[in-house]
Amino acid sequence: MKVEVIAVGTELLLGQIVNGNAAEIGRRLAEVGLDHYHQVVVGDNLGRAAAAISQALGRADAVIITGGLGPTQDDITREAICAAAGVEMAFSEDFAEHLRDWWARRRGRDMPANNLRQAEYPQGAVLLANPRGTAPGLRLAVGRVWLFALPGVPQEMLPMLEEDVIPFLVKEAGGPGVLASRLIRCWGESESGIAERLGDLFESSANPTVAFLASAGEIKVRLTARAGTRQEAAALLDPLEAEVRRRLGRAVFAVGEETIEQLVLRLCRERGWKLGTAESATGGMVAQRITSVPGASEVFVGSVVAYNPALKTALLGVPAEVIEEEGVVSEQVALAMAEGGSARLGAEVVVAVTGSAGPEPGGAPVGTMAVAVRTPEGSAARTFRMPPDRERARSFTSTAALQAVRLALTGEWW
Amino acid sequence: MKVEVIAVGTELLLGQIVNGNAAEIGRRLAEVGLDHYHQVVVGDNLGRAAAAISQALGRADAVIITGGLGPTQDDITREAICAAAGVEMAFSEDFAEHLRDWWARRRGRDMPANNLRQAEYPQGAVLLANPRGTAPGLRLAVGRVWLFALPGVPQEMLPMLEEDVIPFLVKEAGGPGVLASRLIRCWGESESGIAERLGDLFESSANPTVAFLASAGEIKVRLTARAGTRQEAAALLDPLEAEVRRRLGRAVFAVGEETIEQLVLRLCRERGWKLGTAESATGGMVAQRITSVPGASEVFVGSVVAYNPALKTALLGVPAEVIEEEGVVSEQVALAMAEGGSARLGAEVVVAVTGSAGPEPGGAPVGTMAVAVRTPEGSAARTFRMPPDRERARSFTSTAALQAVRLALTGEWW
Repeated sequence: MKVEVIAVGTELLLGQIVNGNAAEIGRRLAEVGLDHYHQVVVGDNLGRAAAAISQALGRADAVIITGGLGPTQDDITREAICAAAGVEMAFSEDFAEHLRDWWARRRGRDMPANNLRQAEYPQGAVLLANPRGTAPGLRLAVGRVWLFALPGVPQEMLPMLEEDVIPFLVKEAGGPGVLASRLIRCWGESESGIAERLGDLFESSANPTVAFLASAGEIKVRLTARAGTRQEAAALLDPLEAEVRRRLGRAVFAVGEETIEQLVLRLCRERGWKLGTAESATGGMVAQRITSVPGASEVFVGSVVAYNPALKTALLGVPAEVIEEEGVVSEQVALAMAEGGSARLGAEVVVAVTGSAGPEPGGAPVGTMAVAVRTPEGSAARTFRMPPDRERARSFTSTAALQAVRLALTGEWW
Repeated sequence: MKVEVIAVGTELLLGQIVNGNAAEIGRRLAEVGLDHYHQVVVGDNLGRAAAAISQALGRADAVIITGGLGPTQDDITREAICAAAGVEMAFSEDFAEHLRDWWARRRGRDMPANNLRQAEYPQGAVLLANPRGTAPGLRLAVGRVWLFALPGVPQEMLPMLEEDVIPFLVKEAGGPGVLASRLIRCWGESESGIAERLGDLFESSANPTVAFLASAGEIKVRLTARAGTRQEAAALLDPLEAEVRRRLGRAVFAVGEETIEQLVLRLCRERGWKLGTAESATGGMVAQRITSVPGASEVFVGSVVAYNPALKTALLGVPAEVIEEEGVVSEQVALAMAEGGSARLGAEVVVAVTGSAGPEPGGAPVGTMAVAVRTPEGSAARTFRMPPDRERARSFTSTAALQAVRLALTGEWW
């Protein structure tokens, strides 16, 4: 079953709001294994909304429309459905009564006359209850296509999607429709390097499918399978996951939804060790990422951001002669920052970053980043050449720092 | 001129990411007064992407495509343009050389063979420089329609939209030569409060236009005027800016592109003072934001992130009895953190944050945030009730901390 999503609303075209509804609907459709190939946004314009609905009726098995069901003149979704489906507008005296009632009970006053528009509906449509608002949803069979209209307010739309639309479509699709996916998290390779090693899997696989996503130096490979049952889906995914892992080797650091921040906190918690950071070029970004995880305070104690070189000595005890001899961007300084940070923060595990994020080369070519980690079991440092773009260099380096902690805690080191 | 926006990316249909690019592009098109009636999303599928482009070529005067320009096999935008526009694929030996060069210089290694795909382009297209990444953009004339393809990564797409696409389209639209805009930056008021005070300006103004944008507690009001000359545009903007400032009063803290991070660094530089932060709930976010500004090291010395309460005493010298008596989330503790941070960091100006970001109430109801600032001229503290959402609370509070520094340095305090 192919499902198309149409959002109606000029505020979306003006960029006043982002189309989060389409993303939510897409996520739910993927989870239940329904195909979803098109999302369309049109403004509050009867002709263009009707044209978008007509086109969707011609290429999809189900259409979900969001927005344009309110009481004002620019809410034109009901009219657009009539025009596209070739049906007349009807009026529900029952629903009008329900609306009057709602206004009296919830707002303690008479309903504005405008709101009677919400009791209009395309002939043949079933009204869907909206427990969170006054605009009812609609379900209409147009030939062999199921057409749904839901309110645009996410808090109203989502429960109706969840309780009405998705179960109805899953049932109509008849198929068991299990869709299972696995996220393989990689680090230490470029997106194109990973793509090259997986190229044929990528081309050959219709089910399961392989997809990529890159962010801040981490590459995610998502495997998705559809099958009759969860077990059958797993049977499709198991060999593919094994093959991907075999080809990517150590670049794979995790499979699942757990982020590198969460993974690092978990590894520390399992060892009973506290975690801290000693940062220069990243300016607190590593600490900020770690503390974005709820419950980080169980493990993370704090950070010293020694941006000024003199503070590396004053606050982290890095010997001035090491800075003098090795340069402030050096593995030796990073190691001394980690060691000093451990003592001062009272943390068994400390990761340290010193580097040159630009635009001026700060003791080393722009993009040079030294990362060191220490644990009670040892220490290690490595130098990276990051892209000479300040924000990218900083975010890629913060990912490298988190990976350094992981590698130290799993005993792989570098 | 009618502009259509097409996003290519299966991750959008799967709801893994939200189509923020379309909203950004829509906002910019609205600001410069270009018509925008359709947004479409298709997956990484050659046939469907080509069909979407064909349809757009038939109903728009310009088409902006985002995504699908990367080096992997699922990046099919170049092929889809060829199919829709009926042109052959060409290969730029120059650009291939540029890519090899980029890899050698920036990554210090040979380019994976896959990446050569990025040197392919639809015959007749002009390559658009991408200063933040390797995927070039494209501009192609298809009959009377201008077709643009931009990378999907927002950090790469936005500068190209701003510097290449928008000026080109504005010029092509033949409208009045000059488009001038002013950004009025506000803080300390809700978006709806500001909207209410500016409501009529909003509705009445076709030229100049008034638009809003809210992020992390800051509200931006953008005034945009079109006119024959820069002087005429300024003559339209001056009275509107004056009226907006009159209505918003102290909520306006700046006009222009200078961010609060840049403003704070400039104010410190002008006074010859060094800046530092002492953070708890924000976990380094304030330091990270300040150090995102190139050249921050002239003014910013560092930060102590004392996430663990004991470190507030050990590293910042907050008396244990103050924590005991006032609670770790209190203005007194924030003031002591700022004072102690100033001594230890050697910074005249220190801003401190202690709060409860959740999910567990850490010494105070979730969302309670105490912010303090000290300068050689005095100190002040204030308590905020932030939204009980961890990331929103942290980012809103980091903005409040930066605003606290501004208010102290301008002598307004709180």
